[in-house]
Amino acid sequence: MKLSDITGPFNRDKDDSQKENDLGFGTGMTTSGQRLINRDGSFNIIRRGLAAWRPYQSLVEMPWAHFLLVVTLFYIVTNALFAAAFVFIGVESLSGVQASLTVWGDFASAFFFSVQTFTTVGYGAISPMSPGANLVASVVALVGLLSFALATGLLFARFSQPKASILFSDKAVVRPYKDTPYNSFQFQVVNRRNNRLINLVAKVSMSWVENLNGEKIRRFAMLELEREQIFLFPLNWVIVHIINKDSPLWGKTEAEIRAMEPEFIALIQGYDETFAQDVHANSSYTCDEIFWNRRFERMYYPDKDGQTILELERVHRIVALEEEE
Amino acid sequence: MKLSDITGPFNRDKDDSQKENDLGFGTGMTTSGQRLINRDGSFNIIRRGLAAWRPYQSLVEMPWAHFLLVVTLFYIVTNALFAAAFVFIGVESLSGVQASLTVWGDFASAFFFSVQTFTTVGYGAISPMSPGANLVASVVALVGLLSFALATGLLFARFSQPKASILFSDKAVVRPYKDTPYNSFQFQVVNRRNNRLINLVAKVSMSWVENLNGEKIRRFAMLELEREQIFLFPLNWVIVHIINKDSPLWGKTEAEIRAMEPEFIALIQGYDETFAQDVHANSSYTCDEIFWNRRFERMYYPDKDGQTILELERVHRIVALEEEE
Amino acid sequence: MKLSDITGPFNRDKDDSQKENDLGFGTGMTTSGQRLINRDGSFNIIRRGLAAWRPYQSLVEMPWAHFLLVVTLFYIVTNALFAAAFVFIGVESLSGVQASLTVWGDFASAFFFSVQTFTTVGYGAISPMSPGANLVASVVALVGLLSFALATGLLFARFSQPKASILFSDKAVVRPYKDTPYNSFQFQVVNRRNNRLINLVAKVSMSWVENLNGEKIRRFAMLELEREQIFLFPLNWVIVHIINKDSPLWGKTEAEIRAMEPEFIALIQGYDETFAQDVHANSSYTCDEIFWNRRFERMYYPDKDGQTILELERVHRIVALEEEE
Amino acid sequence: MKLSDITGPFNRDKDDSQKENDLGFGTGMTTSGQRLINRDGSFNIIRRGLAAWRPYQSLVEMPWAHFLLVVTLFYIVTNALFAAAFVFIGVESLSGVQASLTVWGDFASAFFFSVQTFTTVGYGAISPMSPGANLVASVVALVGLLSFALATGLLFARFSQPKASILFSDKAVVRPYKDTPYNSFQFQVVNRRNNRLINLVAKVSMSWVENLNGEKIRRFAMLELEREQIFLFPLNWVIVHIINKDSPLWGKTEAEIRAMEPEFIALIQGYDETFAQDVHANSSYTCDEIFWNRRFERMYYPDKDGQTILELERVHRIVALEEEE
Repeated sequence: MKLSDITGPFNRDKDDSQKENDLGFGTGMTTSGQRLINRDGSFNIIRRGLAAWRPYQSLVEMPWAHFLLVVTLFYIVTNALFAAAFVFIGVESLSGVQASLTVWGDFASAFFFSVQTFTTVGYGAISPMSPGANLVASVVALVGLLSFALATGLLFARFSQPKASILFSDKAVVRPYKDTPYNSFQFQVVNRRNNRLINLVAKVSMSWVENLNGEKIRRFAMLELEREQIFLFPLNWVIVHIINKDSPLWGKTEAEIRAMEPEFIALIQGYDETFAQDVHANSSYTCDEIFWNRRFERMYYPDKDGQTILELERVHRIVALEEEE
Repeated sequence: MKLSDITGPFNRDKDDSQKENDLGFGTGMTTSGQRLINRDGSFNIIRRGLAAWRPYQSLVEMPWAHFLLVVTLFYIVTNALFAAAFVFIGVESLSGVQASLTVWGDFASAFFFSVQTFTTVGYGAISPMSPGANLVASVVALVGLLSFALATGLLFARFSQPKASILFSDKAVVRPYKDTPYNSFQFQVVNRRNNRLINLVAKVSMSWVENLNGEKIRRFAMLELEREQIFLFPLNWVIVHIINKDSPLWGKTEAEIRAMEPEFIALIQGYDETFAQDVHANSSYTCDEIFWNRRFERMYYPDKDGQTILELERVHRIVALEEEE
Repeated sequence: MKLSDITGPFNRDKDDSQKENDLGFGTGMTTSGQRLINRDGSFNIIRRGLAAWRPYQSLVEMPWAHFLLVVTLFYIVTNALFAAAFVFIGVESLSGVQASLTVWGDFASAFFFSVQTFTTVGYGAISPMSPGANLVASVVALVGLLSFALATGLLFARFSQPKASILFSDKAVVRPYKDTPYNSFQFQVVNRRNNRLINLVAKVSMSWVENLNGEKIRRFAMLELEREQIFLFPLNWVIVHIINKDSPLWGKTEAEIRAMEPEFIALIQGYDETFAQDVHANSSYTCDEIFWNRRFERMYYPDKDGQTILELERVHRIVALEEEE
Repeated sequence: MKLSDITGPFNRDKDDSQKENDLGFGTGMTTSGQRLINRDGSFNIIRRGLAAWRPYQSLVEMPWAHFLLVVTLFYIVTNALFAAAFVFIGVESLSGVQASLTVWGDFASAFFFSVQTFTTVGYGAISPMSPGANLVASVVALVGLLSFALATGLLFARFSQPKASILFSDKAVVRPYKDTPYNSFQFQVVNRRNNRLINLVAKVSMSWVENLNGEKIRRFAMLELEREQIFLFPLNWVIVHIINKDSPLWGKTEAEIRAMEPEFIALIQGYDETFAQDVHANSSYTCDEIFWNRRFERMYYPDKDGQTILELERVHRIVALEEEE
């Protein structure tokens, strides 16, 4: 790569790129000191008021433990309601129910009969005799089947939600860019799985605090990358922002950069062949996670058969620059 | 942003952009005074003649109440038909059916037996004895299972249809653009949910009435936006059309603009991580919903812990320009 | 639209556009006189040899009658095989089976018992007694459930396959383009449904026969369109190719064009909100379907309430140019 | 195609295209002599350490035999666990269980009862009597239904995974490009199915070994193609890289190219109408699979009715250049 590659493209279409640079954070964000994007990629923002209640999405997004709890509660409550209906009709219209002295005994029989119908097991040891009981049982079976149809869809949606298995390095580094006089900001990503992610695209933006007329305001800019796209993702990918004249970090010392309270926000998008869909991952780096004059350790090496081995846990390892590469 | 940002890009590729400007409404649309796009984004057009009947899509698109009604009717009618078949064969080929004096008693027994088979509950209190009854029961069970397979697919399709939770402000404003001599047309959108919408793109077009040789014709044009795309959508997004020389609103007073009977049609597209798909939302603004010299109230503020709070109901609130920002 | 719009863009990037013009038909195609693309959009080509057998795709693509036949046959054959297994074990290990004098009577009982297990109806009038019969029954139930799981997926895939409801006019016309000296080739499309198709893109290419050194070869070219994209698709869309200097039809009379044996191949792509996916439609026009000096009748009009009515069956109607528009 | 088509576009935007040329393999890859991409398109790399365990994806990606084994094992183990629970409660709380002298007899009865409940067959010959047995049976039915809901989703995901039916020629050729003084690298692909693949895009890159300061390093570059995209894919597609001044193969003899240990990596992407999704296929060619001064035999011909026949097995056939075309 020649120097013109470094300085050239960054000056092109400056206005256009700025027009598209907005990350969606207003310029009026208070400089709260809290990070804008959590390390897991979620926004550090609380929504109040007309927040949409979407039961399906909630059921897809909630943790597994909550989901199983909701399913179990729905199973118990629904059958309890139907059991109450059978008790109301009279359990004598159900054949095979043992005589019970208490209403709770009747309720238990009706509950288990409802479960047997709801799940369509239908042993038949208890079965509806009267038209009324038959009618309620028909409703129970329909509701049961539709409920499990819904559960099927929810389970599928939960499992098949495309989650990228992209691992971000937990640290970023600032180091000279190759043999150029330029510094660069670098972090790396790696695919934790053997499946194929293709056509990966990276976008990195930076947010920092600026002193404008005595007031601290938070600014945002997209950072130009040495390479925005790779076609295959077999190994690790070091994402490099060259700190040239167009960079908000240009000409700044480590202390000056730290004073800017910078947050680097990274988005990776790619096509996942298992999900047959685009997947997205994002993360952010604040000053505490940036190390000066370090580089990432090489993650792969050939074993004795010439086979390439990729050590995933090395994604987080940085070494001093002096160490030989 | 410099003035060149405002006037520059708008003159570029004018022919190209116009080529792509067609919204799909012909120029021969009568100026009916009715809006073209309803506020919920649907077209105000009636289709007659060869309209395609697509049962699956209809079942996916119809309201929930209709859908549940269709399912219930299908359940009743199908089982009634099978019950008729069992009555035709003779209910004596079903063991466990109580002697009944009327054909309606037989039909009721056959109906509930059909339901028990259709839902695969199969208590066994009634069961098929003759080969004929067994054959019909085999068909009932197959039809039942395929029906519920279909219902599973429909429920999944209904629920997983990606609906953007994007809320449009119910008003638009016309106000000076920042510190420039230009006016601007603005409205805003906000995400009602906490999930991530990324890579949002906005397109805004305008339709207005023009007097051509004494005949009123309706014209359309895409509007250039200050910013067409944002990468993240954590807060509200104010979409701004700067009224410069290339705008159809250029140099027009409020009265003149009202006389144009304008309708602003907005489309927002973005990638929704829960649905793992692109979602779309659109809306439109007519003159009654546009306010001059107002601005949108700020929707977010830091709470005492520095946490950013976004008040969703403020999306509709506008204030006079004099009030301090 | 000025004349520069007509002649301008067509000369631009000529080499580039030609590079991308290949439709995927080789130049060595024999001029068989048969059309390359059938009117329903399928290729008029027979594939021999290593053709891939993909059972799932075949089951998704086959007509509904075939699909239901395959399902029914599978249901009968599978249960017949399991019935044979029960007969082999001995029907006396199934309680409730009536004594039968013939093996066919045993087989019938075993068959219906298998059906009751496969569909998980399980009346219980017949039930497995011996460990062997219980084991086979366990397999039947598992196979049955997995079969219906598969059927659920297939039904969903069949129904949810995005089929664009785009209707192509069955005729194309050649007529002067607006008030210009240029001729144009035009056809139109309309959405048969009320759902929203957005971001429609059209691509039109042409194939014709050319006499090269006494040998007739078939050539292909993409045609430049007046407008390649529309954002909304509420009404009909007339797709227009202006016959200017860059068109293969430039300067040709009707007779000369007919001698070229042209075939116009059209592809339309758009985003369908019901399917939440891109849908595609294509069609082709040969000389018999092209009419000179005709125009399409207007498809929409306002009713007495000012509501716009779109008459879908008018998509095929053309009228002589002299008739007033 | 004029010579300017050959030399022109390749010099354009050289820096830009190189910026995007990275295939995702680092330059530090050892020259192990092993191929980087296996012929089936998978990476020849072993991942160690933090490799993500994703049960759903594993179940979707594993071979069918493994999948069916996992399903069967899960079915047996789960029911065995529930059988143990019933034995623990006491089989006397299950009506219809024959007296058994051994615990294994009890276990067998409980196991088959569990299976009948898990699959919701529920014959009723055995049915739960005590509240405890009823409670366990309710859990069994719920777990069974959820398990089959999951299996439905897995089967659907397995079958509907879009696998392109694109067949790569097992050989590549180097031959003069048409009537130009340039050589070219060519391979071909064909669709094995009759379904429609549209908007196909090809990307080809090359990896080779270079001697830098006495050290052998592996380099990568994207190759410019004569044609990157075709709209329809009815026949075979010969993908052609013209070896001009910008090619890493420029001016090299066969022996010199073989000494470079080249590997050509090909990616094809297209939209599959059956899957309604983009599909991807890739492959690679090493020196052993490249033949000089050969061409691909024509794969299609008209039969006596003028119908075009495509012989798929000819995709691999090459012939000497002297043979007439």
